[in-house]
Amino acid sequence: MAERSDAPRLAPGTRVHVLTVSDGVANGTREDRSGAVIRARIAELGGTVTDAVVPDEVARIGAAIRAAAADHAIVLTTGGTGLTPRDVTPQATRSVIEIEVPGVAEAMRAAGRASTPLADLSRAVAGVVDRALVVNLPGSPNGALESLGAIEAILAHAVETLAGPHDHDVARGGAAVPYDRPKEDAR
Amino acid sequence: MAERSDAPRLAPGTRVHVLTVSDGVANGTREDRSGAVIRARIAELGGTVTDAVVPDEVARIGAAIRAAAADHAIVLTTGGTGLTPRDVTPQATRSVIEIEVPGVAEAMRAAGRASTPLADLSRAVAGVVDRALVVNLPGSPNGALESLGAIEAILAHAVETLAGPHDHDVARGGAAVPYDRPKEDAR
Amino acid sequence: MAERSDAPRLAPGTRVHVLTVSDGVANGTREDRSGAVIRARIAELGGTVTDAVVPDEVARIGAAIRAAAADHAIVLTTGGTGLTPRDVTPQATRSVIEIEVPGVAEAMRAAGRASTPLADLSRAVAGVVDRALVVNLPGSPNGALESLGAIEAILAHAVETLAGPHDHDVARGGAAVPYDRPKEDAR
Repeated sequence: MAERSDAPRLAPGTRVHVLTVSDGVANGTREDRSGAVIRARIAELGGTVTDAVVPDEVARIGAAIRAAAADHAIVLTTGGTGLTPRDVTPQATRSVIEIEVPGVAEAMRAAGRASTPLADLSRAVAGVVDRALVVNLPGSPNGALESLGAIEAILAHAVETLAGPHDHDVARGGAAVPYDRPKEDAR
Repeated sequence: MAERSDAPRLAPGTRVHVLTVSDGVANGTREDRSGAVIRARIAELGGTVTDAVVPDEVARIGAAIRAAAADHAIVLTTGGTGLTPRDVTPQATRSVIEIEVPGVAEAMRAAGRASTPLADLSRAVAGVVDRALVVNLPGSPNGALESLGAIEAILAHAVETLAGPHDHDVARGGAAVPYDRPKEDAR
Repeated sequence: MAERSDAPRLAPGTRVHVLTVSDGVANGTREDRSGAVIRARIAELGGTVTDAVVPDEVARIGAAIRAAAADHAIVLTTGGTGLTPRDVTPQATRSVIEIEVPGVAEAMRAAGRASTPLADLSRAVAGVVDRALVVNLPGSPNGALESLGAIEAILAHAVETLAGPHDHDVARGGAAVPYDRPKEDAR
């Protein structure tokens, strides 16, 4: 596992949404342990956390990611990355991302492989929706924390890059184009 | 190469199909050396092995994978993962898999890279067809064995996961839904 | 970074095209530093280098790759692999490649990861167009050189494999089919 103390902190007020994908949690028969550890870790990194739960259904997951991307800089899902027919989080994620960022998933699996070869069975996907970075984490608390640890070092940079202003905003507007929905919490 | 003695054995009777993809082997002008070493290794791991040969043709390969997936827990192909126009195994595999499991291919290439950078030229794909894990191995005996070595540790777990019963089977049936085609050899 | 002295040299006269993808370089407001270091490195490896510059536009990039692939053995792009809306080189590359070679991109990111976790944010793609190997390199000089270093060991082999003759050429023609556009410079 990465040296957790070394991870760069998120800019104050960076909004992060943690989406737990689980039939069991959604219907109240299972405790949301992975969501809880992810939320705690994001708070440690300085992020402002919100959360939600959806069952393992492609349309529900896709809609939840899209809604969260509208006013968060990062959307982390947990659960549904395995091999069973009910594991559909990667498919749902792929259906809403505008661009895929394959290295993020590769890095999580490469880090996981050092702990357990079973990490290779995670079909996690990462990509960008509406200038938010969306990342699938596995459903087990340990797996989720380990995957998150593998990418903590890139989160702040990715958020900053996605927020812009980008060269072409400047080129077109003469000055930076103001974003109507800043993704850092103004409070 | 992974410590071969450490690999978890397959459950007794786990059915594994080894599909050699090669024009030369199919027309009798080439010996099936990679198929032979893979079959021997699977037998060592405790699997029940069947095998077949097809030429390097997308439709033939896809049909052979699908047919094998119907009554095997694992389908391993060998050959046709390179860069020439006649290397079409990854395309054929992608045309029949229901979900892709990218970490399996990443793990094989990462392990191969430690031996030879040429491992990065394998376009191997892994995925699931009809609850069977399908994995492309390279066509050279050494490359095939090395790639197999990189994923032996996940085979038993993947087979068990894919066999189910899955949560939703239980949820819907009150008890585990019986599978009409158990993929372990009953003999 | 790989031991640069160990990289196998390209066959004399191997034609390599370096395509700089950058609005700034294309409109003359930015210096082409990454293109320059890539060209120098390819010359060291024994290749014959040509180059061009295009702005960050999918159609322009795709057309430039396709044109270069017609008479080069390798096409290296630099720039446009990041997360901003103007980074479109991977999309453009994917739109023209006939087959993808995922291990090449995985190897570049795995090597980059050892230097900086930000390497995981490169969406670089590699594939084959018209028997030419096409590889996206990042836009920073250091990142481009490091990514190139990670794949230098496979370039000569990939070029040789793609040039053929392939088994099926031989099988169909009785002898090797002559290629009308040899991709090695005859001078």
